[in-house]
Amino acid sequence: MRTIKLNLNKRSYNIVAGGGIINLLGKYIAGLDIGSDAYIITNSLIKNKYAGALERALRQAGFTVKFKLVPDAESAKSIKMVSAVIEDIVRYDKKKRLFIIAFGGGVIGDLAGFIASIYKRGIPYIQVPTTLLAQVDSSIGGKTAVDLVKGKNLVGAFYQPRLVFSDVNTLKTLPPRQLRSGLAEVIKYGIIKDPRLFAYLEKNYADILARKGPVLEFIVGRCSRIKANIVQEDEREERGRRTILNFGHTIGHAIEAAANYKGYNHGEAVALGMLVACDISKALRLIDDEAAKRIKQLIGSTGLPVKIRKLCAKDIIEAHYHDKKFIGAKNKLVLIKGIGKTKIAQNLPLEIIRQALRKRF
Amino acid sequence: MRTIKLNLNKRSYNIVAGGGIINLLGKYIAGLDIGSDAYIITNSLIKNKYAGALERALRQAGFTVKFKLVPDAESAKSIKMVSAVIEDIVRYDKKKRLFIIAFGGGVIGDLAGFIASIYKRGIPYIQVPTTLLAQVDSSIGGKTAVDLVKGKNLVGAFYQPRLVFSDVNTLKTLPPRQLRSGLAEVIKYGIIKDPRLFAYLEKNYADILARKGPVLEFIVGRCSRIKANIVQEDEREERGRRTILNFGHTIGHAIEAAANYKGYNHGEAVALGMLVACDISKALRLIDDEAAKRIKQLIGSTGLPVKIRKLCAKDIIEAHYHDKKFIGAKNKLVLIKGIGKTKIAQNLPLEIIRQALRKRF
Repeated sequence: MRTIKLNLNKRSYNIVAGGGIINLLGKYIAGLDIGSDAYIITNSLIKNKYAGALERALRQAGFTVKFKLVPDAESAKSIKMVSAVIEDIVRYDKKKRLFIIAFGGGVIGDLAGFIASIYKRGIPYIQVPTTLLAQVDSSIGGKTAVDLVKGKNLVGAFYQPRLVFSDVNTLKTLPPRQLRSGLAEVIKYGIIKDPRLFAYLEKNYADILARKGPVLEFIVGRCSRIKANIVQEDEREERGRRTILNFGHTIGHAIEAAANYKGYNHGEAVALGMLVACDISKALRLIDDEAAKRIKQLIGSTGLPVKIRKLCAKDIIEAHYHDKKFIGAKNKLVLIKGIGKTKIAQNLPLEIIRQALRKRF
Repeated sequence: MRTIKLNLNKRSYNIVAGGGIINLLGKYIAGLDIGSDAYIITNSLIKNKYAGALERALRQAGFTVKFKLVPDAESAKSIKMVSAVIEDIVRYDKKKRLFIIAFGGGVIGDLAGFIASIYKRGIPYIQVPTTLLAQVDSSIGGKTAVDLVKGKNLVGAFYQPRLVFSDVNTLKTLPPRQLRSGLAEVIKYGIIKDPRLFAYLEKNYADILARKGPVLEFIVGRCSRIKANIVQEDEREERGRRTILNFGHTIGHAIEAAANYKGYNHGEAVALGMLVACDISKALRLIDDEAAKRIKQLIGSTGLPVKIRKLCAKDIIEAHYHDKKFIGAKNKLVLIKGIGKTKIAQNLPLEIIRQALRKRF
């Protein structure tokens, strides 16, 4: 078991990662003094698998427990769902000692975190992520959001959880495609910040895909530390420090959007986005062939896509220019100067992006 | 013209109050560097009266201007309206340099502030309050909220504006009942914090009701300073300092709720709540007859209600126990030890509240 402290003065919290730790959750929450009534937002898939252990742990520590099921799909992240869940919370929140647990992947974390941020102008919440993507990335840092009909994540808040509790055993039942999606973010941390993690992944990716417990605990702990360090320095994405987390994401988001959020999941699109950013970095002579080759090899070995199918470059470029990260129509891309070192590029000529994109077809 | 600075480190802002100052708003906003496109949330009543002057001021300073009309009623403060307005903002927010102006009373300020807090995890907004209640109270301090079907203000955020700009000339067309509603909050500031303001009101209440410009500017400026001082010390109502602002409000809210938010407007209910709190303070020998008499006299002179009609004490007590300010079913009331001095009372015997309530029938 690993404990990582995320320091944000009054909003500091711990990230706890380990195998089979769910039975300890009640004790951890009891130590926070955040209330008596646990309102757990989850979906039926996760509830069927893990609710027993979670409920037992909470009841033994003296908490009341109420599960709220939402769909296992992006559609759960809607303003409508926000209203519906809060109307339900009001019915249950009699003693006014209620806190929220987000028990699931990124969609549930985003929805539950946003609800916690706006209900009564903010109540405490806990992240209990059950996917690799959520454990290494979305559960940490307090970025919450829901979708509008007009666009993903257009509504949200920066609102920190009181605890992130990652039981890596939940990854053992994760569908392989979802595990790989999370692995794309793990690889990203290696590329932007941690050459030793990158080398570890080159050596151990097969054990990750085989869900070996100690390996999973190692990568979740290591990535949580990296994410926590970055969030500590730039909680609200104001200082640019958090920008490097967008490596692979600007083009990745454009690929997801161009494919209408079907076809590619987040990690697959990010893998392709990282390869494009990598090719741009090479074209600008920021990295050598060796580094580019290692990155391509690792992404390919894990079974993540290295080629874009059923899309054309034009649609991706267009989607790219609609991305909300553009400020005043200037583009901004995270590139690399080597494994572990980033460089922010602004106003790149479109032709350079286009050429790098073409290599992915 | 008066300028009051509200100090909250990076979230500091000015409150500007004066007569006929709306034509200066463009210049003030230009100095803030918050964007180029003004999205003004208002209602048709206010737009018809004042939009010309506002639009001219903004366009002269180089801003684009878009008005969004919402109903002139509490119904504008719904989650549905939040979605509808944000969908509209997305269509207009092309250059990503949009900020919001809340142009109206408390309902519009609450709605617009909440929208600004959650759209893209927060964009800048300006409060341009047009009612006395909004100018002296709700526009200052960053408390925003919308209603659920199940209850008022159950969803919201603490999110500070970048400027509060109060043109007291807008008060000249305010219906008398709404002016008096705001006056209840002005009287409250005198009672809880400022004996000189209280004495000023005793002397000048007729000039306020006659909408004399210098008198309005004085009270808006003075009350803004008091509210700003309290918010500075307790931005998120965590330290109890902001609690004193609830003087008259706990019972006031219960009266509003018991009357189903018809019959009494906010200020009228607060006036009655202040009288009850005053009678409790007298019963507990915290204040003498003289102070109680002065308070009753001032409230009565302004035309605010001093008796409760069409409601019974039982319903008010019940509504009182549903108020969200109860923590763990303990009651908590702001009382006074004299004009200008408060005392927080916890767990008062219900019978004392009941007796004080009875005097209002």
